[in-house]
Amino acid sequence: MIPTITAFEHSPDGGKGLARDTRVRWALEEAGRPYEVRLLSFPALKEPAHLALHPFGQIPTYEEGDLVLFETGAIVFHIAERHARLLPEDANARARAIAWMFAAANTVEPPILELGTARLLEHDKPWNKERLPLVEERVRVRLKQLSARLGDADWLDGAFSAGDLMMISVLLRIKPSGILDGFPNLSAYVARGEARPAYKRAYKAQLATYNASRPAAPVERLHNDSHGGEP
Amino acid sequence: MIPTITAFEHSPDGGKGLARDTRVRWALEEAGRPYEVRLLSFPALKEPAHLALHPFGQIPTYEEGDLVLFETGAIVFHIAERHARLLPEDANARARAIAWMFAAANTVEPPILELGTARLLEHDKPWNKERLPLVEERVRVRLKQLSARLGDADWLDGAFSAGDLMMISVLLRIKPSGILDGFPNLSAYVARGEARPAYKRAYKAQLATYNASRPAAPVERLHNDSHGGEP
Repeated sequence: MIPTITAFEHSPDGGKGLARDTRVRWALEEAGRPYEVRLLSFPALKEPAHLALHPFGQIPTYEEGDLVLFETGAIVFHIAERHARLLPEDANARARAIAWMFAAANTVEPPILELGTARLLEHDKPWNKERLPLVEERVRVRLKQLSARLGDADWLDGAFSAGDLMMISVLLRIKPSGILDGFPNLSAYVARGEARPAYKRAYKAQLATYNASRPAAPVERLHNDSHGGEP
Repeated sequence: MIPTITAFEHSPDGGKGLARDTRVRWALEEAGRPYEVRLLSFPALKEPAHLALHPFGQIPTYEEGDLVLFETGAIVFHIAERHARLLPEDANARARAIAWMFAAANTVEPPILELGTARLLEHDKPWNKERLPLVEERVRVRLKQLSARLGDADWLDGAFSAGDLMMISVLLRIKPSGILDGFPNLSAYVARGEARPAYKRAYKAQLATYNASRPAAPVERLHNDSHGGEP
């Protein structure tokens, strides 16, 4: 059965690939699974039809027969559980890969989301200039710890896993900020992710969708819909 | 094999039960599993011996034979996968319960963490009084959506699951703020969680640990170690 995911009709980031459907597309590409995409306008996200699928009015969702899933991490995990190449077979290694998925979602992404909020939703506030360095420093604390753990390894724990997919996707959000440049091994780690054929296919497919449904979204939309962490 | 978890030697919140080992203790109690606890001082969290177990220098960790796990969500999931009562048997219902675990970690907790950061790390900043209502509003946006989805159900999706355990644990963090009082069905949901015998045992066991290792931690410690989201 071919699953259907939802994605934005227009890019909220000018085609940087940061909307979260990229993570799901990437997982599906790694697993070698075909999928269909249903595009949504920004207003449609908050309409009852979509809220019935996604209680927080975001993308992506994942529909497969009777199953309706929301939350990127859960969708990636669902795909990883059912297809090879994203979770190790060894039980302990599998549990550790899942730990990296949750670490991306609950430990590394929150300060990065906070930085995005400061930049997008508080950019016109009088405190923003003085406050931004504090928020950036909180991101650096996490990156320093992650960098120390990664060391000179290719991936976080043995072979590439769904944990790397999630962590690299989270780190990609701060690539434009330049903060990542202070951590060469993390920059190289992210570049290794971007170089994977499955990532390239996912990125290209998302971009093709946006290009097919121009014009680009107005910036005001981005601000409203980034509220709380999307894209 | 009896697992060993790590926990704070002293309560960072004056005994409110918010340190994240509560979530793991709760899962173990729901599963009917015995466990051992190794207590750590705040400075010990950042020492090499602990960083080898937990790259971000936090609690809890989970050791069971050769397996070393960090990240609360992953530990709760590991326990839930191996024991009944925390994940449904039906495959689709199981996937949805996991979606709620990730929703707690990646959608509901981040704005709540941001509120904690504003209160603890920016309480002396000139902008804090004007900024706090904005941050609280971001939390309310999420709670409103969660409240709409929960409706008058007891739990988020059928029987109590690890998804409820994680979501209730996240909501408990803002119980002292009073924000939850604006959403009576969420307050009742949290109260249902707190009334579960397994939660009560977990809370009591954590409090007994703290009481056995007085004196209470100085407030400065709380500020330093809350950086990035702990407890």
